[in-house]
Amino acid sequence: MKNNAKNNFPQPSVRRLPAYLRMLRKLKGDGQFQISCTRIAKELNLDSTQVRKDLAITGIAGKPRVGYEINPLIASIEVFLGWNHSMGAFLVGAGNLGKALIGYENFTNYGLQIKAAFDVDPDKVGETIFGREVYPLSRMGELARQGGVMLGILTVPAQAAQAASEIMVAAGLRGIWNFSPVKLDLPDSVVVENVELVSSLAVLSLRLLR
Amino acid sequence: MKNNAKNNFPQPSVRRLPAYLRMLRKLKGDGQFQISCTRIAKELNLDSTQVRKDLAITGIAGKPRVGYEINPLIASIEVFLGWNHSMGAFLVGAGNLGKALIGYENFTNYGLQIKAAFDVDPDKVGETIFGREVYPLSRMGELARQGGVMLGILTVPAQAAQAASEIMVAAGLRGIWNFSPVKLDLPDSVVVENVELVSSLAVLSLRLLR
Repeated sequence: MKNNAKNNFPQPSVRRLPAYLRMLRKLKGDGQFQISCTRIAKELNLDSTQVRKDLAITGIAGKPRVGYEINPLIASIEVFLGWNHSMGAFLVGAGNLGKALIGYENFTNYGLQIKAAFDVDPDKVGETIFGREVYPLSRMGELARQGGVMLGILTVPAQAAQAASEIMVAAGLRGIWNFSPVKLDLPDSVVVENVELVSSLAVLSLRLLR
Repeated sequence: MKNNAKNNFPQPSVRRLPAYLRMLRKLKGDGQFQISCTRIAKELNLDSTQVRKDLAITGIAGKPRVGYEINPLIASIEVFLGWNHSMGAFLVGAGNLGKALIGYENFTNYGLQIKAAFDVDPDKVGETIFGREVYPLSRMGELARQGGVMLGILTVPAQAAQAASEIMVAAGLRGIWNFSPVKLDLPDSVVVENVELVSSLAVLSLRLLR
């Protein structure tokens, strides 16, 4: 929670940007050039004031009556999130979830390129998963420097998560996308984003119940 | 967004409940009986006022100076989320992500029991994944009635998501945990909770950038 206060952008707005991007790219593919705020709001089931606020954080404003030009709006979102360049990442933990994420081609549309995987299991080391080689953890630092990789995706079991994350930080990774159900204890300089699947399950359970 | 307004509980609080539960269960396992609000706040890197508010939505209040008794607090969270009973679910789409979720044993700690998988691929039908059989989609309605299953987990590729979700609704499922990057168009009576991995990636990208 506290870390998110480091930038001043409201997190719910940031979290909605990929949905805008997906819709805008589709419209662009359909040959469209402009879209009104009202139409965006309708498509995404949002309030149009909210849409204007969300998109404004990327530094772009719609024009009254006309709305947004699609190409500059796409560019504005991409540049804001750094998705105009691809970002290399290492995946740590080549189990089922790790494999699923490596095979999830959609990530390349959102600036993320998984370059290699790492695992402690000697049987997995040397394997190739969807074209990415699995290396031992001991090679992470060297390969991170070589490839200029800053981001790690953590998909090891809970009991291995803290130790693996420390190896990632020692290897020079600056950001960790944490899929393990563990609150990692790392230096403040490391950016950690937790994917809390069970948080989403809590919301779902409550809504099903009431 | 709009659907979440159906209940009056603040979603950020609901999303934090699993983290409280995880911590409290661990303390219980360690043989502890009580915990102060300050200590909970410290462990989870939250403000203690926030902790009090979050836990109050489950209907429990701490005692001044004493804090919370751990057992009743665990029970309160579990009952609030319906996690005191296990909820059966069907998984639709037995690809890599589907397999990973079936193999993720941690879900049973949060009330979720994946009972069977479904897939369109005749090669997958009849397979067993971590003890769960893969059925053709045509059998979903019959098996849902038999097992009293209300929840579906959607892990098919984007282009198949809308059609698959309609089959799930026709089969009588009332809730869909949607792992596909698609905004499903379904009757309002169906509870849909989207797992937006790319939303989490957006937050991470932005924090790494700035």
